[in-house]
Amino acid sequence: MNQDYIIPNAWSIIEEGFDVDRVKSSESIFSIGNGAMGQRANYEEHYSGPTFQGSYIAGVYYPDKTKVGWWKNGYPEYFAKVLNAPSWIGIDININKEQLDLFSVKKVEDFRRELNMKEGWLSRSFKVTLQNDNEIQVEAKRFLSLDLDEVGAIQYAITPLNCDADLVITPYIDAGITNEDSNWDDKFWNISNLAVDGQQAFIEAQTMKTDFHTCTFMQSECFVNNQNAGLQPQVIKTDNKISLIHKISIRQQETFTIHKFGGYTSDRNHNKTELISAAQNALNNAVDSGFAEMLEKQKQSWANIWQMADITIDGDIMAQQAIRFNIFQLNQTYLGTDSRLNIGPKGFTGEKYGGSTYWDTEAYCIPFYMATKDDKVARNLLEYRHNHLEKAIKNAEKLGFRNGAALYPMVTMNGEECHNEWEITFEEIHRNGAIAFAIYNYYRFTGDYSYISEKGLEVLIGIARFWHQRATYSTQKNKYVILGVTGPNEYENNVNNNWYTNYIAKWCIDYAVENIDKIEAEFNSDYTRIMNKVKLSETEISDWRKVADNMYFPYSEEHKVFLQQDGFLDKEFITVADLDKSQRPINQKWSWDRILRSPYIKQADTLQGFYFFEDDFSTEELESHFDFYEPFTVHESSLSPCVHSVQAAKLGRMEQAYKFYLRTSRLDLDDYNHEVHEGLHITSMAGTWMSIVEGFGGMRVKNDTLSFNPQIPEHWKAYSFKVNFRNRILKVTVDRKEVKFQLKSEEELQILVNDDTVILQPDKLVSV
Amino acid sequence: MNQDYIIPNAWSIIEEGFDVDRVKSSESIFSIGNGAMGQRANYEEHYSGPTFQGSYIAGVYYPDKTKVGWWKNGYPEYFAKVLNAPSWIGIDININKEQLDLFSVKKVEDFRRELNMKEGWLSRSFKVTLQNDNEIQVEAKRFLSLDLDEVGAIQYAITPLNCDADLVITPYIDAGITNEDSNWDDKFWNISNLAVDGQQAFIEAQTMKTDFHTCTFMQSECFVNNQNAGLQPQVIKTDNKISLIHKISIRQQETFTIHKFGGYTSDRNHNKTELISAAQNALNNAVDSGFAEMLEKQKQSWANIWQMADITIDGDIMAQQAIRFNIFQLNQTYLGTDSRLNIGPKGFTGEKYGGSTYWDTEAYCIPFYMATKDDKVARNLLEYRHNHLEKAIKNAEKLGFRNGAALYPMVTMNGEECHNEWEITFEEIHRNGAIAFAIYNYYRFTGDYSYISEKGLEVLIGIARFWHQRATYSTQKNKYVILGVTGPNEYENNVNNNWYTNYIAKWCIDYAVENIDKIEAEFNSDYTRIMNKVKLSETEISDWRKVADNMYFPYSEEHKVFLQQDGFLDKEFITVADLDKSQRPINQKWSWDRILRSPYIKQADTLQGFYFFEDDFSTEELESHFDFYEPFTVHESSLSPCVHSVQAAKLGRMEQAYKFYLRTSRLDLDDYNHEVHEGLHITSMAGTWMSIVEGFGGMRVKNDTLSFNPQIPEHWKAYSFKVNFRNRILKVTVDRKEVKFQLKSEEELQILVNDDTVILQPDKLVSV
Repeated sequence: MNQDYIIPNAWSIIEEGFDVDRVKSSESIFSIGNGAMGQRANYEEHYSGPTFQGSYIAGVYYPDKTKVGWWKNGYPEYFAKVLNAPSWIGIDININKEQLDLFSVKKVEDFRRELNMKEGWLSRSFKVTLQNDNEIQVEAKRFLSLDLDEVGAIQYAITPLNCDADLVITPYIDAGITNEDSNWDDKFWNISNLAVDGQQAFIEAQTMKTDFHTCTFMQSECFVNNQNAGLQPQVIKTDNKISLIHKISIRQQETFTIHKFGGYTSDRNHNKTELISAAQNALNNAVDSGFAEMLEKQKQSWANIWQMADITIDGDIMAQQAIRFNIFQLNQTYLGTDSRLNIGPKGFTGEKYGGSTYWDTEAYCIPFYMATKDDKVARNLLEYRHNHLEKAIKNAEKLGFRNGAALYPMVTMNGEECHNEWEITFEEIHRNGAIAFAIYNYYRFTGDYSYISEKGLEVLIGIARFWHQRATYSTQKNKYVILGVTGPNEYENNVNNNWYTNYIAKWCIDYAVENIDKIEAEFNSDYTRIMNKVKLSETEISDWRKVADNMYFPYSEEHKVFLQQDGFLDKEFITVADLDKSQRPINQKWSWDRILRSPYIKQADTLQGFYFFEDDFSTEELESHFDFYEPFTVHESSLSPCVHSVQAAKLGRMEQAYKFYLRTSRLDLDDYNHEVHEGLHITSMAGTWMSIVEGFGGMRVKNDTLSFNPQIPEHWKAYSFKVNFRNRILKVTVDRKEVKFQLKSEEELQILVNDDTVILQPDKLVSV
Repeated sequence: MNQDYIIPNAWSIIEEGFDVDRVKSSESIFSIGNGAMGQRANYEEHYSGPTFQGSYIAGVYYPDKTKVGWWKNGYPEYFAKVLNAPSWIGIDININKEQLDLFSVKKVEDFRRELNMKEGWLSRSFKVTLQNDNEIQVEAKRFLSLDLDEVGAIQYAITPLNCDADLVITPYIDAGITNEDSNWDDKFWNISNLAVDGQQAFIEAQTMKTDFHTCTFMQSECFVNNQNAGLQPQVIKTDNKISLIHKISIRQQETFTIHKFGGYTSDRNHNKTELISAAQNALNNAVDSGFAEMLEKQKQSWANIWQMADITIDGDIMAQQAIRFNIFQLNQTYLGTDSRLNIGPKGFTGEKYGGSTYWDTEAYCIPFYMATKDDKVARNLLEYRHNHLEKAIKNAEKLGFRNGAALYPMVTMNGEECHNEWEITFEEIHRNGAIAFAIYNYYRFTGDYSYISEKGLEVLIGIARFWHQRATYSTQKNKYVILGVTGPNEYENNVNNNWYTNYIAKWCIDYAVENIDKIEAEFNSDYTRIMNKVKLSETEISDWRKVADNMYFPYSEEHKVFLQQDGFLDKEFITVADLDKSQRPINQKWSWDRILRSPYIKQADTLQGFYFFEDDFSTEELESHFDFYEPFTVHESSLSPCVHSVQAAKLGRMEQAYKFYLRTSRLDLDDYNHEVHEGLHITSMAGTWMSIVEGFGGMRVKNDTLSFNPQIPEHWKAYSFKVNFRNRILKVTVDRKEVKFQLKSEEELQILVNDDTVILQPDKLVSV
């Protein structure tokens, strides 16, 4: 744990006291979003200190020209990156001729920031003493509406405490923004139109190259002591900014309040000629409702989300705060209503990693969304990949594959590869496996086979073709080998026969064949349609089988474990515990070669395979592999602790499981990795959910039946979670004595608890 | 062979006919240099077509900010690169109000370019028809003086053939230049002073960051029909350019000639406040001599070089032209008089590879310079590395080594690492071995031990320390292993136990220990001085020995060969001959992962070890390794064919040896790699020399004795070369019947010819 200023609270993230060194960190942690847009917790008023400004519109990206030291064939020309959008939150505050700026005022007192996760709003209050000795109280609150998802609302109130005040209040919209991580300091936006209509202002801007059309808009209302002040603003337009200047004088202890509504319309959802009229509609809806009514609706919308997604933890406020923070941020990032969108590793909280979609989605996020939302949401995530199948085939062709072999990109926004390190882009190919596994996982959990017969099989075939072509025959081993890969442990590059990769490659082929057979037997018209499209012959399938049936798996007879890769045992084995602390984290302390030849593992690799394919191995095998690999695991990926937490729990090592849980759940709140200022780790937050539900709760699907093996960490009195299993909502409550199940459904549900069958009746509480 | 416009000629490189598509290629091939500066064969007059302008001053570089996709710890902050210097060759020609520009004239006839290697000059002649139908004959000649190495001279003559001509002739110096390969389009030069003094003009400019001070200068004389025209020029200065405008009218068939002298002085050789006065001296010397006398001296200087360095080939004009081109370019690049300089892979002919020094110098260039020049030249190249020892120790520290371990940079200008690909920078560590090997090779050839006792031992100790620390103990193999390296074959990255690397690592330790013992016994005061400095204990030496004595060498019992690396045999073995031609060169056709998992070898790797450590292996072993590896070698490095040529010759496969010879010697003239426009491959040119002297001539040093096993390619009538062996000059002539030796020395010399002892007397011709 590396920072500890976040105040423990069950439903809110709270910061007290103003500290310039925490501003960027808090801008990340207090980020807000509504799935359609998001923003870092930048201040509304001017701030001249160190800050990282960020506003983002879901799906609006820019293909930044790739930057590399030395070009390699096959590298992508462009890196699609989340684009910093024009900002609509700004309000310049001038009090008796002095600009309000927390960095330059004489004193800041009673600074408090709260992100209320239950109700979905962010507030800030403080008292400042200006250089002119005016003392001012400020109270600000804002949210991005879930209900009107193009609009956000701000309430900003100013009370002069020791003086009368001539106020100049200037809400503005500003399109003169850049990305911090622009590769070449390119300009990303063309501004085409600045318009003002009464109290409403609009800037139309288009992204360069991708030509997304957007309109950024705002409208304000001013009040003095809650009475509309009826101010007529003066309009100032520059090349890229519209400011509406409001002047008013108020008395000491009177309160001036501005309600500012703003947001974006874009041609992703509207005709590009109608962006201003759509913006006017959105503003009119917002202003007609007013701030208070919108906020009420916001509370209701979040209540609906929490109703299904909440996890309660009794007796451990830090853990409770953390799990809600993770669930809250996941829902702020992705709500699952738009199959063109996906879950970026940093969501709407930063720019790093640019492109939106990694294998994180399939490996870590889908279980959370499957269990806490309607099936359609997970299905949307699967369809996202189906929509990109043609591009995955093109991507594989760039690397020399043919005949419809598909390699999904490591990082993508639109289906095209965006990453540019050869050892990742070309070699971290196990990502293809996670995409197939998610199809299996979706069917296993939801029971909805229609996705596979309608769309998924084509994806499975493209992936099976890739693995078949990618494996080569080793005469020496008399087996098929997969040479030159990077496994989930990115601290080894270009290794041969990464066990995880080989295992999932074989599984992908087997699973594709199994589904071809099933669809041929049970969905014949789908079968004919798909086979006509993909031109798959029996000979080709039997060639696949040859590879799958003769895949090589490195194994150590001495240690009785599968080897992470062929050369693993040649390393010098000093455990992480024996490694000098001054050398950690190794990715910040060591040169890359040293990391690569070390035994240290960034995140679950062989153990990731044991997580996905748990049923293929005994608990004893899991234990021996866990004991062999975990001591060399540095967990320097945000995706590492969660899988280890689930497995430690399975092995009954609850103390260790709990430690991993805390590390995954408070990764950002406590800034374990010293980088929270760059943004939050959104995708790994779904792993936190896993740690509780699959780890402590022991939830699995076994032979089509939902199963639990609940345990409880020593520090907890009780915890509860809900899952939506095939449209039956099940609430599970675990305390130190018993486990309670409550089913919301019209039908009964048969489950397994510690491998015993339990039949749950609708609305009846069952204790076990 | 991919281009064939160079006209065969024993002493000259000749191009006939004007072709815009060949301009950049010829700019490289016809480059001139004098060791202190060099320039591409750009035109003096304006040229608006595609061109790659380049003038370079030896040792003047710029640390360009590193560009990478993803930063890794240990990467260099800066990439020192050869800097495009201000140009002094420009002469604008205006005839009857039309600018002479070969790209826009109506017609170019009788275009001829000659690089006279015997005499060291470049000429160009052509007849143009201007758009105004004026027909003009132009004859231009220029050279960079070996004698006055800060000065170059141009003679440029214009004869109007069908008209009288109002000429405006404007020689200029121009500091407004950029590097084509600038990473960030940075400006590299600050211009501080533009001065004109009579006919002399000067621009003082400093490099940014490195702060090299330079003065670019010029002076001209004008003649009509060889009579000094006494013209007073008009001076035009802009921010970065000085032009001297000369106006004169001449009659049809009269010839106007301008002699332009120019060049650079720099604070590498002068006090920075005296650059202009040094330039004035240089100009005065040049002008006093005049163009004709300077040219005479140039011929003499080149005759002196050729006297020692020439290789004659009888009966194969292409081979003769090629070897002279290689020898000529090597001498244009590096003359060995300045130990601060080294041999850049592109010399003064382009920008690619930026930094000046690679392991090419030690592995390929030193034998050539040792044999064709005074010992001091090779010693200077060794001292260059000794001078950089402290920086090599710092470089190793960056990668986690300690206690004086030295890792020499992969690419450097000033001793600091410049390369930024982890698989090269951090892993292609065998370079350290070549640097130690060169010390051994120098002593073996010259018999001069003083370098080792005075300086070399410190380098050997730093390198031995590196290998000792870099090897790790594998309990599985019960041997020391070297994990995560890139061998000379850069088409495999991050492999374990590259045989060549392991072999040279062991050798380095053994050789360091051997020399420590020898110096302790024979040079005790050196021993004490060095040991006091490096603090080397007996324990440390015995730890080194443990590593050297227990080094692991991968070996295939099945194939009876040492394996290039641990995983080599798992590959799919399709020979280069069976690889579809459309896939070649693989580095332009395949993605990097595909190259890495293929069996294809870029350049000699295991065979490089057999080349360096020939005496450790039998000819049968060489043969089996050659037969195992060469069929998978694509020779896509310029350094590949030469080593294979030497080895094929040793195996008596003269036809194959000859093919490799042609490929190495005409690599640039015939543009095998489709990249000659970027510059020449200077360092590999020394490999061409090896192919003849060590390959066909079979020259070795065996037990302190010079030895020959001469053979002759079928296509040749005879060939001859000279070597300077320990200050005795030996000329060797091989024809189809016999081998003749002629010794220039005061003492006799005992040599081996086909393993028989032959005693040569001074000035006596001996036939064998």
